[in-house]
Amino acid sequence: MVKINENYLKLPGSYLFSEVARRIRVYQEAHPQAEIIKLSIGDVTRPLVPAVTSAMRAAVDEMGTAEGFRGYGPEQGYEFLREAIAQGDYAARGVAVQPGEIFVSDGAKSDCGNIGDIFGVDNVVAVCDPVYPVYVDTNAMAGRAGEYQEELGKWNRLVYMPCVEANGFAPEPPEDIPDIIYLCSPNNPTGAVMTKDQLKVWVDYANAHGSVILYDSAYEAFITSGNVPHTIFEVEGARTCAIEFRSFSKTAGFTGSRCAYTVVPMELERGGAKLNALWNRRQCTKFNGVPYVVQRGAAAVYTPEGRAQIMANIDYYRANAKVIREGLSAAGLACFGGVDAPYIWLKTPGGAGSWEFFDRVLAEANVATTPGAGFGPSGEGYIRLTAFGGAEATKAAVERVCNMFR
Amino acid sequence: MVKINENYLKLPGSYLFSEVARRIRVYQEAHPQAEIIKLSIGDVTRPLVPAVTSAMRAAVDEMGTAEGFRGYGPEQGYEFLREAIAQGDYAARGVAVQPGEIFVSDGAKSDCGNIGDIFGVDNVVAVCDPVYPVYVDTNAMAGRAGEYQEELGKWNRLVYMPCVEANGFAPEPPEDIPDIIYLCSPNNPTGAVMTKDQLKVWVDYANAHGSVILYDSAYEAFITSGNVPHTIFEVEGARTCAIEFRSFSKTAGFTGSRCAYTVVPMELERGGAKLNALWNRRQCTKFNGVPYVVQRGAAAVYTPEGRAQIMANIDYYRANAKVIREGLSAAGLACFGGVDAPYIWLKTPGGAGSWEFFDRVLAEANVATTPGAGFGPSGEGYIRLTAFGGAEATKAAVERVCNMFR
Repeated sequence: MVKINENYLKLPGSYLFSEVARRIRVYQEAHPQAEIIKLSIGDVTRPLVPAVTSAMRAAVDEMGTAEGFRGYGPEQGYEFLREAIAQGDYAARGVAVQPGEIFVSDGAKSDCGNIGDIFGVDNVVAVCDPVYPVYVDTNAMAGRAGEYQEELGKWNRLVYMPCVEANGFAPEPPEDIPDIIYLCSPNNPTGAVMTKDQLKVWVDYANAHGSVILYDSAYEAFITSGNVPHTIFEVEGARTCAIEFRSFSKTAGFTGSRCAYTVVPMELERGGAKLNALWNRRQCTKFNGVPYVVQRGAAAVYTPEGRAQIMANIDYYRANAKVIREGLSAAGLACFGGVDAPYIWLKTPGGAGSWEFFDRVLAEANVATTPGAGFGPSGEGYIRLTAFGGAEATKAAVERVCNMFR
Repeated sequence: MVKINENYLKLPGSYLFSEVARRIRVYQEAHPQAEIIKLSIGDVTRPLVPAVTSAMRAAVDEMGTAEGFRGYGPEQGYEFLREAIAQGDYAARGVAVQPGEIFVSDGAKSDCGNIGDIFGVDNVVAVCDPVYPVYVDTNAMAGRAGEYQEELGKWNRLVYMPCVEANGFAPEPPEDIPDIIYLCSPNNPTGAVMTKDQLKVWVDYANAHGSVILYDSAYEAFITSGNVPHTIFEVEGARTCAIEFRSFSKTAGFTGSRCAYTVVPMELERGGAKLNALWNRRQCTKFNGVPYVVQRGAAAVYTPEGRAQIMANIDYYRANAKVIREGLSAAGLACFGGVDAPYIWLKTPGGAGSWEFFDRVLAEANVATTPGAGFGPSGEGYIRLTAFGGAEATKAAVERVCNMFR
């Protein structure tokens, strides 16, 4: 008789975004006239840029000819893309990353989850609180999280690192040394960033204890502050302790086109094994590469036109972030993030609960947000707003929320 | 200190196709004049058909406009594709499969490997021998295969089901009841197929013992014989014991475009849990869907033009298979498969070893093949030839091999 993976049964049922969607639907049905503006889900809205669509169209044409057709590509990604990434995202910033350290994939979500395959089940995992739910759920599925404690909203084998107003939303190295440490900067959901000095503390800590940092920098393109590293490999010592996840999703609008990459430095060894070799084996055995057409589109992001075009979109979203941050602050609300990130982390006024305030904003301003409590216990008392909407809609949403407090 | 997944270290080092590639390279370097024809790797060579490229081009155009842009799609695939699959691959054959049972993915390789996530580590897994290496390696990585016994070429916790000439290359239900059973028909590498009656025995066996059949029918499009089911769900009782993997790779030339799907029937329960719900949770947490452009291309396969165009390509490959099968048989060689499958399983003459005969064919005919021993111990004494090459090259290759025996 087949035994299922019992860890799946421990996962709490309702998923954050499903519950948000459900409440929006219920409200809309009860108020059919309401024009709800969604600043809730972190999905881009600007179309693919012309450099990308041109490259994709050319690749589709190639695939339709006998000479240009491509079958199985390298599991790790085509050299043309790995080279472009090594040059454009690393060498251009004075950071040496070889193409052989870059694994092109279908998404940072896949990679953040699948990376667990190369690690033993008995590792202790640390996550920020609040946190992107995928880190937690994938480790729970793999048996690394222990048991879910409903009353605490926590798993008993995970180490939670509170990111709260008191510490500037920056995780602090825990006393119980974790083996695997997820860090995300610019952060989802708080919009906070780690400076180079802050990150250096983590790199030294991981190297001292033999831990591995899983560094998610999917929102790197939004960084504006000078002292915030764009990659963890700007920090000395990171090549012996860190794996970095990057994505074209938010950088170039690829949420519906699926392309990302993971960097595993050659120097990174644990238990006598090179993690680059383990990840290579994992990808070669359980993955078959990203579509050629998509890889051509992603490579176009590194051309001068492509770069200029995607940065114009990033600027568009940054302007939205500024509108949200400044508008809500002017109305007397406490806002965090939104400077180096597309997320604004809003403290609920009067100590209201996350879901309570979510419901109130939905009802009074017809604006959908995401309750902070959905990202972990320390997210209670906050809501997340995203800068990925249309400029006009974003302005209107901010005005409506401000009117609640006039 | 991070513990790596020690199971990775148990995997035998050299991968079949790397070793084949190495030997071809060494031979080519020593004989620069030799024009080697490759009938070795199972990758398609015909370009994408016009219906597919038109649909992809239109989708790229959509993605470049504000109105047509799509961000995150449903993790399970767009309804338009799930509906087309349910209609075209199932309803059209009188088999009822709902769109909600279909999970669109980036490849059957990914799915065959990832499906293990929803099962416990302590299940006993049965595989055919010879076998597609991914079933074995992914289970070894997950800790279900035990230890690799170099001298036997086998893992000590896997159940091997020999598929040899004596049983017509059809696996037989083992006495030690396995929990998870991988079946592949039309088979890679032997090209053998299971009839409806043969498959019924397996379905009854799995239902009787609470086992789950993982049914890989990636080569379904090549079936010509009337008594061979195109899907395991043609067999009564399969909905309570089977998961089916299908792919656009060999059907529509998508090896470089990446689209496949997995069917998990609603009735399939084990340990009180619906496997459909578990797989849905797995995909929603660790996967973010297939690119919109690719899904539009895949859906075009189900239009009348698309269907006609891809069948023309299948016919092209079928003609190659016939050329190989009939040519080598006429030269007195014992050939199997190649009727309902793109693979021909050739018995080495005079009891030669697989690698020995591989080397001989490479040297004397300048034709690259795949040694059967690379697919498992029972593949010793065979080589695999594929029908995915060009028609002229395939004819030339067959003539050269035949000349070795004149």
